[in-house]
Amino acid sequence: MEKKKNVSMAVIKRLPKYHRYLKELMRNDVDRISSKELGEKIGFTASQIRQDLNNFGDFGQQGYGYNVKELYKQISLILGLDKEYTGVIIGAGNLGQAIANYNRFSESGLSIECIFDANPKLIGMRIRDIEIKDIDTLTQYLQENSTDIGIICVPRINAQKVTDMLVKSGVKGIWNFAPVDLVVPDDVKVENVHLSESLLTLVYLMKDN
Amino acid sequence: MEKKKNVSMAVIKRLPKYHRYLKELMRNDVDRISSKELGEKIGFTASQIRQDLNNFGDFGQQGYGYNVKELYKQISLILGLDKEYTGVIIGAGNLGQAIANYNRFSESGLSIECIFDANPKLIGMRIRDIEIKDIDTLTQYLQENSTDIGIICVPRINAQKVTDMLVKSGVKGIWNFAPVDLVVPDDVKVENVHLSESLLTLVYLMKDN
Repeated sequence: MEKKKNVSMAVIKRLPKYHRYLKELMRNDVDRISSKELGEKIGFTASQIRQDLNNFGDFGQQGYGYNVKELYKQISLILGLDKEYTGVIIGAGNLGQAIANYNRFSESGLSIECIFDANPKLIGMRIRDIEIKDIDTLTQYLQENSTDIGIICVPRINAQKVTDMLVKSGVKGIWNFAPVDLVVPDDVKVENVHLSESLLTLVYLMKDN
Repeated sequence: MEKKKNVSMAVIKRLPKYHRYLKELMRNDVDRISSKELGEKIGFTASQIRQDLNNFGDFGQQGYGYNVKELYKQISLILGLDKEYTGVIIGAGNLGQAIANYNRFSESGLSIECIFDANPKLIGMRIRDIEIKDIDTLTQYLQENSTDIGIICVPRINAQKVTDMLVKSGVKGIWNFAPVDLVVPDDVKVENVHLSESLLTLVYLMKDN
């Protein structure tokens, strides 16, 4: 299975959803499913599902549908879930602590190794097993510990600065929770979670009602 | 200024971004900006910005550009930020507590009134000023307190059940952090924050590198 190039961002954003639904089907002991049935579950058309998956290979079988376990495995591979990732959180405020506490990310292969903060009151504390370290030791830490993902939970005003520190030390993935658009080199990937923007979208949709 | 109908979801999703950038410009004492300059900042083309904003009215002026403060005000109105919203969090686990703690949402007009949970150890505790109440008292609470938004922070398996309780009591907005797609009537709006899917997208993009 060779991944094709130029898969659109829209398709990429749908992959985790396929992954989630297939996992749900496995939980319910469903062995196989047609693109039509899968589509009805997810809310996509059967044709969209076939098109999306055709970007990555020839799954499914005419008249049989998809083997749920096999498709789940393939999508896991496509998503890169066969690999483990290490991450550090920058910012030990409420959001940083919540993310450290929220232990679901290990299912996605992410192991959060430590948290960095500038607040002396927080340094040395532990969130679950994860130690809060002095932000001044970040660069040294990154030199000594291979780190894939930096999780940005600092205030807006400091977000670009800590991102620059991470990128300079070779971190290639930034998961950004700060309400700001970060500037990074092409080989560094950024995924944003903008909570306030999500809330504003909801408020707009409610007003539109 | 009368909002036009049938504004696409893509445009709606961009509005909070305009709002954020205009706020930033106001912070930096910028009085006016051309669509070209605004576009360069946000990373959109000038023509896209003009098209997006034309959905809602005739802002900006040939040769002058946009009055930043006025456009900010208008977009705030379009987003419904002239109104206050009340919300309750369902689920006082790490994520629910983090959201209760994260006090930025008041800027978007959302006042979080209380949290509900089934865990007797948590009931009666306070997160900042927000009390954790017994989930069994949710329906009664909603009868007595007008509530706009329900924030779903319960495990996947309970998310639809608590959503049904909220909807039955007249809540019209659901901000869903559970990794599941909720089923609601047409007059109820759902906005999802799927953290694990966001992480999977990042991991995919990094693998693609």
